[in-house]
Amino acid sequence: MMNSPLSATLSTANQSLPNLPWQDRPPENSDVVWRYDANPIIPRNAIPTLNSIFNSAVVPFNGNFAGVFRCDDRRRLMNVHAGFSQDGIHWNIQPEPIQWICEDSEISKFVHRYDPRVCWLEDRYYVTWCNGYHGPTIGVGYTFDFQTFTQIENAFLPHNRNGVLFPRKINGRYAMYSRPSDTGHTPFGDIFYSESPDLVYWGRHRWVMGPKPWTWQSTKIGAGPTPIETPEGWLMIYHGVLTSCNGFVYSMGAALVDLEQPWKVRYRSAPYLLSPQTLYECVGDVPNVAFPCATLYDQPTDRIAIYYGGADTVTALAFTDLDDILTFLRENSEL
Amino acid sequence: MMNSPLSATLSTANQSLPNLPWQDRPPENSDVVWRYDANPIIPRNAIPTLNSIFNSAVVPFNGNFAGVFRCDDRRRLMNVHAGFSQDGIHWNIQPEPIQWICEDSEISKFVHRYDPRVCWLEDRYYVTWCNGYHGPTIGVGYTFDFQTFTQIENAFLPHNRNGVLFPRKINGRYAMYSRPSDTGHTPFGDIFYSESPDLVYWGRHRWVMGPKPWTWQSTKIGAGPTPIETPEGWLMIYHGVLTSCNGFVYSMGAALVDLEQPWKVRYRSAPYLLSPQTLYECVGDVPNVAFPCATLYDQPTDRIAIYYGGADTVTALAFTDLDDILTFLRENSEL
Amino acid sequence: MMNSPLSATLSTANQSLPNLPWQDRPPENSDVVWRYDANPIIPRNAIPTLNSIFNSAVVPFNGNFAGVFRCDDRRRLMNVHAGFSQDGIHWNIQPEPIQWICEDSEISKFVHRYDPRVCWLEDRYYVTWCNGYHGPTIGVGYTFDFQTFTQIENAFLPHNRNGVLFPRKINGRYAMYSRPSDTGHTPFGDIFYSESPDLVYWGRHRWVMGPKPWTWQSTKIGAGPTPIETPEGWLMIYHGVLTSCNGFVYSMGAALVDLEQPWKVRYRSAPYLLSPQTLYECVGDVPNVAFPCATLYDQPTDRIAIYYGGADTVTALAFTDLDDILTFLRENSEL
Amino acid sequence: MMNSPLSATLSTANQSLPNLPWQDRPPENSDVVWRYDANPIIPRNAIPTLNSIFNSAVVPFNGNFAGVFRCDDRRRLMNVHAGFSQDGIHWNIQPEPIQWICEDSEISKFVHRYDPRVCWLEDRYYVTWCNGYHGPTIGVGYTFDFQTFTQIENAFLPHNRNGVLFPRKINGRYAMYSRPSDTGHTPFGDIFYSESPDLVYWGRHRWVMGPKPWTWQSTKIGAGPTPIETPEGWLMIYHGVLTSCNGFVYSMGAALVDLEQPWKVRYRSAPYLLSPQTLYECVGDVPNVAFPCATLYDQPTDRIAIYYGGADTVTALAFTDLDDILTFLRENSEL
Amino acid sequence: MMNSPLSATLSTANQSLPNLPWQDRPPENSDVVWRYDANPIIPRNAIPTLNSIFNSAVVPFNGNFAGVFRCDDRRRLMNVHAGFSQDGIHWNIQPEPIQWICEDSEISKFVHRYDPRVCWLEDRYYVTWCNGYHGPTIGVGYTFDFQTFTQIENAFLPHNRNGVLFPRKINGRYAMYSRPSDTGHTPFGDIFYSESPDLVYWGRHRWVMGPKPWTWQSTKIGAGPTPIETPEGWLMIYHGVLTSCNGFVYSMGAALVDLEQPWKVRYRSAPYLLSPQTLYECVGDVPNVAFPCATLYDQPTDRIAIYYGGADTVTALAFTDLDDILTFLRENSEL
Amino acid sequence: MMNSPLSATLSTANQSLPNLPWQDRPPENSDVVWRYDANPIIPRNAIPTLNSIFNSAVVPFNGNFAGVFRCDDRRRLMNVHAGFSQDGIHWNIQPEPIQWICEDSEISKFVHRYDPRVCWLEDRYYVTWCNGYHGPTIGVGYTFDFQTFTQIENAFLPHNRNGVLFPRKINGRYAMYSRPSDTGHTPFGDIFYSESPDLVYWGRHRWVMGPKPWTWQSTKIGAGPTPIETPEGWLMIYHGVLTSCNGFVYSMGAALVDLEQPWKVRYRSAPYLLSPQTLYECVGDVPNVAFPCATLYDQPTDRIAIYYGGADTVTALAFTDLDDILTFLRENSEL
Repeated sequence: MMNSPLSATLSTANQSLPNLPWQDRPPENSDVVWRYDANPIIPRNAIPTLNSIFNSAVVPFNGNFAGVFRCDDRRRLMNVHAGFSQDGIHWNIQPEPIQWICEDSEISKFVHRYDPRVCWLEDRYYVTWCNGYHGPTIGVGYTFDFQTFTQIENAFLPHNRNGVLFPRKINGRYAMYSRPSDTGHTPFGDIFYSESPDLVYWGRHRWVMGPKPWTWQSTKIGAGPTPIETPEGWLMIYHGVLTSCNGFVYSMGAALVDLEQPWKVRYRSAPYLLSPQTLYECVGDVPNVAFPCATLYDQPTDRIAIYYGGADTVTALAFTDLDDILTFLRENSEL
Repeated sequence: MMNSPLSATLSTANQSLPNLPWQDRPPENSDVVWRYDANPIIPRNAIPTLNSIFNSAVVPFNGNFAGVFRCDDRRRLMNVHAGFSQDGIHWNIQPEPIQWICEDSEISKFVHRYDPRVCWLEDRYYVTWCNGYHGPTIGVGYTFDFQTFTQIENAFLPHNRNGVLFPRKINGRYAMYSRPSDTGHTPFGDIFYSESPDLVYWGRHRWVMGPKPWTWQSTKIGAGPTPIETPEGWLMIYHGVLTSCNGFVYSMGAALVDLEQPWKVRYRSAPYLLSPQTLYECVGDVPNVAFPCATLYDQPTDRIAIYYGGADTVTALAFTDLDDILTFLRENSEL
Repeated sequence: MMNSPLSATLSTANQSLPNLPWQDRPPENSDVVWRYDANPIIPRNAIPTLNSIFNSAVVPFNGNFAGVFRCDDRRRLMNVHAGFSQDGIHWNIQPEPIQWICEDSEISKFVHRYDPRVCWLEDRYYVTWCNGYHGPTIGVGYTFDFQTFTQIENAFLPHNRNGVLFPRKINGRYAMYSRPSDTGHTPFGDIFYSESPDLVYWGRHRWVMGPKPWTWQSTKIGAGPTPIETPEGWLMIYHGVLTSCNGFVYSMGAALVDLEQPWKVRYRSAPYLLSPQTLYECVGDVPNVAFPCATLYDQPTDRIAIYYGGADTVTALAFTDLDDILTFLRENSEL
Repeated sequence: MMNSPLSATLSTANQSLPNLPWQDRPPENSDVVWRYDANPIIPRNAIPTLNSIFNSAVVPFNGNFAGVFRCDDRRRLMNVHAGFSQDGIHWNIQPEPIQWICEDSEISKFVHRYDPRVCWLEDRYYVTWCNGYHGPTIGVGYTFDFQTFTQIENAFLPHNRNGVLFPRKINGRYAMYSRPSDTGHTPFGDIFYSESPDLVYWGRHRWVMGPKPWTWQSTKIGAGPTPIETPEGWLMIYHGVLTSCNGFVYSMGAALVDLEQPWKVRYRSAPYLLSPQTLYECVGDVPNVAFPCATLYDQPTDRIAIYYGGADTVTALAFTDLDDILTFLRENSEL
Repeated sequence: MMNSPLSATLSTANQSLPNLPWQDRPPENSDVVWRYDANPIIPRNAIPTLNSIFNSAVVPFNGNFAGVFRCDDRRRLMNVHAGFSQDGIHWNIQPEPIQWICEDSEISKFVHRYDPRVCWLEDRYYVTWCNGYHGPTIGVGYTFDFQTFTQIENAFLPHNRNGVLFPRKINGRYAMYSRPSDTGHTPFGDIFYSESPDLVYWGRHRWVMGPKPWTWQSTKIGAGPTPIETPEGWLMIYHGVLTSCNGFVYSMGAALVDLEQPWKVRYRSAPYLLSPQTLYECVGDVPNVAFPCATLYDQPTDRIAIYYGGADTVTALAFTDLDDILTFLRENSEL
Repeated sequence: MMNSPLSATLSTANQSLPNLPWQDRPPENSDVVWRYDANPIIPRNAIPTLNSIFNSAVVPFNGNFAGVFRCDDRRRLMNVHAGFSQDGIHWNIQPEPIQWICEDSEISKFVHRYDPRVCWLEDRYYVTWCNGYHGPTIGVGYTFDFQTFTQIENAFLPHNRNGVLFPRKINGRYAMYSRPSDTGHTPFGDIFYSESPDLVYWGRHRWVMGPKPWTWQSTKIGAGPTPIETPEGWLMIYHGVLTSCNGFVYSMGAALVDLEQPWKVRYRSAPYLLSPQTLYECVGDVPNVAFPCATLYDQPTDRIAIYYGGADTVTALAFTDLDDILTFLRENSEL
């Protein structure tokens, strides 16, 4: 299924996924994105030796699903584990972190790895994550089989977070979103776009968009799942952060950006799509967080399943329809 | 009922309200203020397109009740909506914000409006709120019918919050409490008193009271509902904020101030009256907030209903007796 | 029981406590420390006039149990109260704070007292607490009967917190752990060891250990219960704090230190033993706090009951076995 | 001279001042504002018991000059003293602070008074200053003779600084610029305009202008001397602050604002007029400060003398021509 | 002279410069670096319309010298100007900023440009500077003649400062030092090394070195002049910053790094080479700054002239011998 | 001379010192403390390999003078050196730091040593300094001959600075002033008093005095030279710090405290005695610092010479008369 002719022009996310996890929108609910009613799908103690499993990325894999999961152990070290599932809901997560093969010992030393994204690109699954190398930066690696993982060069200088690859080359070059940051829990952050001829050297950095004052995304924003290609543009689901009178609130929104110039934003959701409102989003290691890192998309039914972290503690699932979300964007956009 | 002869000398808050929402103090409970057992009376999603409804002000109106409600929409823009109720508990809130009529376009531009108070004064309902005009300041307007609302001049220069009008003139002048602030989530704040001959020009500013170290009100304080006139003085219910090891806690207290010199405090509750202890006060967009903005008072029964925001997310109700609270103040006062 | 010959060489904590509160580890649970299933054992409103009861210290007393409890009243003043229990679970806490007898009025003035520890040492119960004297420092006092309490000199200059006495002299001198701090909610903190010939003059200060980057104890650490003497060393249960993207998280860990040079750490738990994961640990006046202040140890069964505060609001109980925790330390140590 | 018919329509600043202190622009100097070559005219130790004399205001008085001077004593208390001069350069400053007559003891208590301005308005000299009243606010008083001074109500609620009166009523009301601030050394600050019917109650607050990023006025700005009326508008000389890699820099600029709507800015100097570059501006109690508080203007010769504080330590003098500065503004304006 | 055969293997900096500005070390002076006795060579008002000229880069050019100078105008906008000199001491600086030719309007918009470096590389002079593009980053451009300047892509994502090119390719790729930063006056900063196949896409980022606690370089460090190639390694002169009790101090030091792996440091000067001690280094727009941006090197005499900014206000000159500085490094190195 | 019978009751500071450095008060100067006209007596480069020499302590020694000097080397490491002088003005400072003999390697490891004080006490010269031991604390040592120096235990836990011994036992115990601090450039600081039976264990901590708002000593204060015993009490010269709009200002003041209860302040100078006003006090590594660390007192003439650091860069000298300063204190005291 991964090798259908369609993949020559459209990225893998735009495929048929008959086993996409799904639940219809409840009758009384008019929201464009709605929660799975058995959330969280992965509780914090799914693996007894870990502290939490969240902010994780899943992809279709061999007719089933595979993923890379952020797992904090009970030292609270942040690392990434591989996992597998037949239905996208019940996951078998490896108890041990991924062991990365890396030629250069200078960059392979583990400091921390967190908030992974996974992207099928050309012939393999690329993984990007926030990688500790004298500050947070974007680690990059790949796997063909979710058994063996190879780490390549960090994409950028520190300090950076939320690196998200595009599922195909743009203008003949690899493309990535990221959010330049600082050493700590940065109270600022814009999304930038960068290109690379070879996934090693990156340049042609372009500013995409920044926070919007007085809104749910007034403090900082960062790209979320791998963008979904649509005829109108790339659908980017992202997180935005508001500084309340008593801490941060991480919510989820969406934008539609130009297909060939993905730093040009066509629509940007003025309202959030989903904000932390349930106990598993509001209470946990980091209160008030809904943090999307992956989507699954089934083109025939137009359905999208969104995987997001709750309170930096658990993994949850929400649903939407591509057509609905595009309509919502067109009707609720403020650039 | 609003036009009884009594209103010549006592303000409207001190009237008969036979339909005041009420619930007796539970038998096992000795607190001077107790919660309504079906709180929150207005959940965050009472209007599906909004994010939350809280920190709102209600008044008796035409034998029923009307109010101005802080409604954050899903952009997290803060605005105020009108609402109506027959019992003070079940509310019909307008889905659209109040449209203010204002002669001067310089001050009528919307930035944000939040934390409204409503006060019957002379012949109309005045509304005050935190108004964005190159910083937060006190917006002022009025309505006769909760259909048409007129905005007049901002009371003060920025940065100010929690502007609360007195329900009658004092010394022949309009009177207001407010809390000078700064541009952000100010970690300081005293209550001041100001007078105006015409609700446009304000002066004769007097300091009323400030935070008290090591207590629930050690970081900042701000006036809450319209003060209630009693023979002994004005009853002021207010909020106080404590900075804990891990964020702020907003609780509710009371003071009794001089009738003609309302910057002179006679009693001030050393203990809080109510602090955030329930899930709807502790968990939400802003954890640990109980924020009072309005009271209803029924003189014949001496009952007071207090409307307060929970976690900057929902609207809740609590009750007390005027005589009880005055006794409590006399016995638990620390100036 | 307190006066057994054993106390000549081993401290009182290492005694027989047949009525130690206990609950077996649940079958499905492999954690080295597990929670009491009826937690919290002391809810916040156990005494109606108080705000909360937590971070408290209990000891065996006359065949039953006694303790000194941190009680915040509804002014949110922090003070310590005596309490008694027959089973260590159901507590009768005095509604009024302890009245300290102190010869010198210069140091006896109440500012605040919090986070007490209690330690049987030689012939009496010593109490240490965080004492306000021109800044937080370590208050010291003693009682023979939990009726009459005498305050002696503060151990150190401000600013200090979490002073924990050893249950016997070391090298002929009294010994104490403490955590030098600053005036506020200090974002740093190491554990130090000090000695005194007479509990009045302190010196020979030695650094014990500090935070560990990228872990649950990366911001600050502080000693918890009175150390438990074992043949291999002193078992020190302590708290560690992590700064998340949205506030602090206070967890519980353990270390084993040298018997005669208690500033030399032999093992230190890389994983936490218990982190805030339940509602009573995650939601309250200070979210995300599990703060241990006391243990009871029954040598014949090797059982340990740990008393800890939840969310700076309630008192909770957890259990472990000494042998298990020592094994855990040996196998999970990172210095 | 103060009572010429011209004063009916133009303010006193626009008068003939044949004894205006003056020094021609040096031949090699093309700056629109140039320094007096014997600066500072008042050294820090002009009165031996004081620490410094600076940020002061002078006016024509009885054919000579009088002024109100900020004098910090050697406690570093900030207060204002009267002073007199025949030539505007050599000043006889009273060694004791001004004793203010004030009816209301609530507002007359001395906390600190600093950065005075003086303005001839209608029939007397008004003095405004930064006045400590539970935070900094704008103190207001007047004198007829610089012997007896009367304090009236503070103009605004705290926190405010740099209150500057206009020398005539505008739209039938008194008019003042001010800069809302916070409790400390505020890193923000816009200029606002307010009106009053009686110098007691103030309202109709209008935003005038704020900082400009990446310039000498990027952190905060505040009005300086009493505005000078010209046919084209009010000439406002003001200070602007830049945050460098190592502290603040206070420079001097100018704007021309509408005569009847002084919150509408017509021209605003993109370059500064004078920045701290001499030792007496760069070295002192507050390094890198040039802070203008007064001007003298001689209409026949078009000359302006500017009094400014150097390094918050000494008083200095600079010169310009009104026509030159207006030309400079027209040619170098960025709004 | 620029095209000598030597340039095939050694970079242009390592050439003969008979007209190198020079002054012998004063007899009583044993410092490895000593100041020019007529400093500053460029005063702040060298061009009357500017505020200051400093932190600038010079190179040999057509037998004379050319340079790119940081010039702050009197708006305090930061920009770069070209300049020319016959002796390296007396400079003719263009009164207007460089006009950059740039194909892509997205990146050519001026926000600010500062702290330029110039590097002869292969066939032209490359200029790097701190460039405002949604935050500070490294702007890159080139010129052949110091008349026409072309801007190419920014090297990195924001936030970055102090980008310094190597004068030849290393391992077949262009090479640059830079210092990742944040949005403001960053209190941290390490030097990193990056490579590029084409000066557009950058990668293979390697950490070089960071601050050293308790020293002149304890807060942040940044590369300075173009490195000088020596048989033992690249000589890197850099700045380091100390946070004193009252602000920052910027001093100058040196390191010797591996020729082919310039992220490996062989020697690093434990003492500074020069710290701000003269009035022109200690007093000015930014007190206490000595900031090197360029060197000239004359191989036959082994002489080095160092250009550095004083107090972010003026341009100064210092001297050393290559052999002396290498000896000094070997004898005073702490890694 | 050091062993006169007087020393049995009065401390050594109160002796005859015929060779006390001295200069009469200039005729036009009415200040109670006046500067030496050839200041600084020790320039920053007195030893070529050092960065600066300041904040140092001198005592009478064998008919001449000896001292312990803070010397920052060119790494900016802070250490203490011995020095000798015949006239107290021209000093021969050892180029190498003092090598401390210390039995316990745990506390003798060098991190930094700064701001020494020296005190003749009983039979030897004690040295106290700010000593780095997991944070700043008070290092203590002694010498008999300024050749051999022995380090004993640190007096207190971190974080502490400005430890100053009394020159005789009080109430039979050694006595010390100190200023509890935090890890950085603490913006707070009170003076405390502590006692010790043996100079190893310290206790009976008493608060002495704190900052005074709105004055030269509003941010923090710290003891300076060894107190001088007078019949009326101990004369304590100390430093106070003010936070200006642009950094700190360190000035010098005095207090007179009770002879037997030195935590009871009798007089405290409302004005400063000396504030940074000269170039060598205002310009240097730390601008605006006058920091006293030692006095010499000649009882027959009543003369006092004060040694103080200028701008944390040089050593300066000032003079006063004991009787004058006591009169000044009595007449200018505000507690």
